[in-house]
Amino acid sequence: MNIDARSIIDAPQLRSAAEQLRPDADPGEVVARAAWSVLLEPGDGVAGALIAVHGAVAALQLALGEPGLLVPEEISPRALADARSRWHPRAKAEAVKEALSSCREVGGQILLPDDEDWPRGLDDLGAHAPQVLWARGDPGVLHEGATASIVGARAATGYGESVAAEIAGDLASSGTTIISGGAYGIDGAAHRAALGSGGKTAAFLAGGVDRAYPIGHQQLFDRIRASGVVMSEVPCGGAPTKWRFLQRNRLIAASGMATVVVEAGWRSGSLNTAGHAAALGRPIGAVPGPVTSAASAGCHRLLREYDAVCVTNAQEVRELWGEQPDPASAAVRADPEQIRLLDALSSRAPRETAELARRSGLAMDRVRSLLGLLALDGAVTQHERGWQRTP
Amino acid sequence: MNIDARSIIDAPQLRSAAEQLRPDADPGEVVARAAWSVLLEPGDGVAGALIAVHGAVAALQLALGEPGLLVPEEISPRALADARSRWHPRAKAEAVKEALSSCREVGGQILLPDDEDWPRGLDDLGAHAPQVLWARGDPGVLHEGATASIVGARAATGYGESVAAEIAGDLASSGTTIISGGAYGIDGAAHRAALGSGGKTAAFLAGGVDRAYPIGHQQLFDRIRASGVVMSEVPCGGAPTKWRFLQRNRLIAASGMATVVVEAGWRSGSLNTAGHAAALGRPIGAVPGPVTSAASAGCHRLLREYDAVCVTNAQEVRELWGEQPDPASAAVRADPEQIRLLDALSSRAPRETAELARRSGLAMDRVRSLLGLLALDGAVTQHERGWQRTP
Repeated sequence: MNIDARSIIDAPQLRSAAEQLRPDADPGEVVARAAWSVLLEPGDGVAGALIAVHGAVAALQLALGEPGLLVPEEISPRALADARSRWHPRAKAEAVKEALSSCREVGGQILLPDDEDWPRGLDDLGAHAPQVLWARGDPGVLHEGATASIVGARAATGYGESVAAEIAGDLASSGTTIISGGAYGIDGAAHRAALGSGGKTAAFLAGGVDRAYPIGHQQLFDRIRASGVVMSEVPCGGAPTKWRFLQRNRLIAASGMATVVVEAGWRSGSLNTAGHAAALGRPIGAVPGPVTSAASAGCHRLLREYDAVCVTNAQEVRELWGEQPDPASAAVRADPEQIRLLDALSSRAPRETAELARRSGLAMDRVRSLLGLLALDGAVTQHERGWQRTP
Repeated sequence: MNIDARSIIDAPQLRSAAEQLRPDADPGEVVARAAWSVLLEPGDGVAGALIAVHGAVAALQLALGEPGLLVPEEISPRALADARSRWHPRAKAEAVKEALSSCREVGGQILLPDDEDWPRGLDDLGAHAPQVLWARGDPGVLHEGATASIVGARAATGYGESVAAEIAGDLASSGTTIISGGAYGIDGAAHRAALGSGGKTAAFLAGGVDRAYPIGHQQLFDRIRASGVVMSEVPCGGAPTKWRFLQRNRLIAASGMATVVVEAGWRSGSLNTAGHAAALGRPIGAVPGPVTSAASAGCHRLLREYDAVCVTNAQEVRELWGEQPDPASAAVRADPEQIRLLDALSSRAPRETAELARRSGLAMDRVRSLLGLLALDGAVTQHERGWQRTP
């Protein structure tokens, strides 16, 4: 079965919808990428490889049936046949028009990979990168400083939500954009704390940006859109399926400089996000919690199995991407012989040097030189009959 | 200043005290090692190197002033002179006699490095290994299976004590000897749980085994002695100084197959124990806790800075020394395409294969073969008008 891709790309109705949405862009490119967004399930690597070689327009022609284009070597004939048979049932001009017009109706925008506002971290996904992003709000918040993905369990505890809020609020108030998935629990606490501290936040959704999922976060999404951005690679009207949640997680992992999991059950979807971050070589942080709390079991699993870094505050999150800690917080290590000499000294009565040598098990010479140092620090005082620890 | 070591080693009073304590051993060796225990502060590497080359008796002669023995290359003349000036003020026959007789009075025993009951893990301390151990109870408990050192803060929380008890009790009841330091808090909880589960436990003290430190653990030490062992390298009467606590920690770290820190403040002494374990190449486990709890800050620091393994239960402690986990607990990973197909299926109404292909974005062939597999599992049911998810 072949479909004429030109019947989609060149359709006047579609070009006009594309021009309304993106007057600054090539309407053919916009239509083609909107079409891919309709044809694909997120993360389709065959489409990614075709588009990387031929561009969205020509790849669409090849995908839908016009021969004559070279297929990249890494795609086997079988994989291409499979892919075409996945795409064909969805190749309807009407669905593409619906994607474009419904985005416009909700005041959204379509982002293309070459756009300035495209989150550059997504490029690391290679063939599995999204072909388009549908956005509501200001996608620029992902370009104005550091970005941290903070995710976790929907069934979070008060402890988890409070730690998520503490860390996200601290990071956001110092200019880091907080990325999360808009879910109940940890995600919501992270978004809210970012908003509450006057900072920036971005939500990646598994379904279309025209619908609030979960519905109880309708108001939260309104607030995120007002100062940040809500994005999805699935067109408006798209349902948030389990597969799309799993693939949405790769966008969260790829667009943050680090991914932090605050609370997660043993099989939480947040571990999937962390797995994507690991695959991309992004640092993973895990917030520990009581071992008696099932909501922290996934975090402890990340520490054990995924080589995640234990993070307990915002500064430790910043260290994930290389910001140096305050040197004043570094531990000062005591000299072991000094400890032994201090053990041997009394704060109530002076003791002679020979007595201190015996008690401390240090040589007389060493005791004398250490006493000198301690006296400089004011830790010991010399009396007529020996040395005393300064009370 | 030279002292005749023979005046100590050959003193009839001392040899007789040694024979009473250890009728099976060479009295000269027993006296010499008891003397070293009196002369040394724990961890003295110069003494360790001398004794390793010449044995305890000859090394004592060299230490106290008789020339004619070769000094090992690694000891500089300066280090030897320093060491001699540390040892000489303590070289009193009376103090050695007191060490031997007071041990006998409390029903204790003296362990020598060649003894069958000597904890073999201590050998890894090399020149810093103790030269003798004073013990009350049965030192054999350190030889009858696995050993785990479980330590932590004196100022423990209810959470910490409860987790320590849970882990120590579980390990002890399956034959692992629990080693700790007899302190309030985590140490006490670990010892108690081991005793309570009918298991074995050993306490290493910083001071002499004749005194209970802390005094409030007098009864606990009595119970530990009754079925396990209380040990120290410091002779009876020796005070538990800060230095001795730090060095005592190396005995805990070296005698356990792994060291687990349950709760610890940011600068807790338990981090010192963990540091010793790390230096010896022993695995370190850290039990996480709420990031809001100062009593867990040291554990989180171990996870961040010391590459400790996050442990949340006894099984994870066993894995520290290589015991394999139950394979049934390993995660089963779902096939991603299967997830997409399950998303596309309804449990209320049957759907045709073409419809499922469109909804899942999978090729028709793939949908058919996956439906076959799912049907075998009973996850889907075929009806006249298509496939349905089994409710």
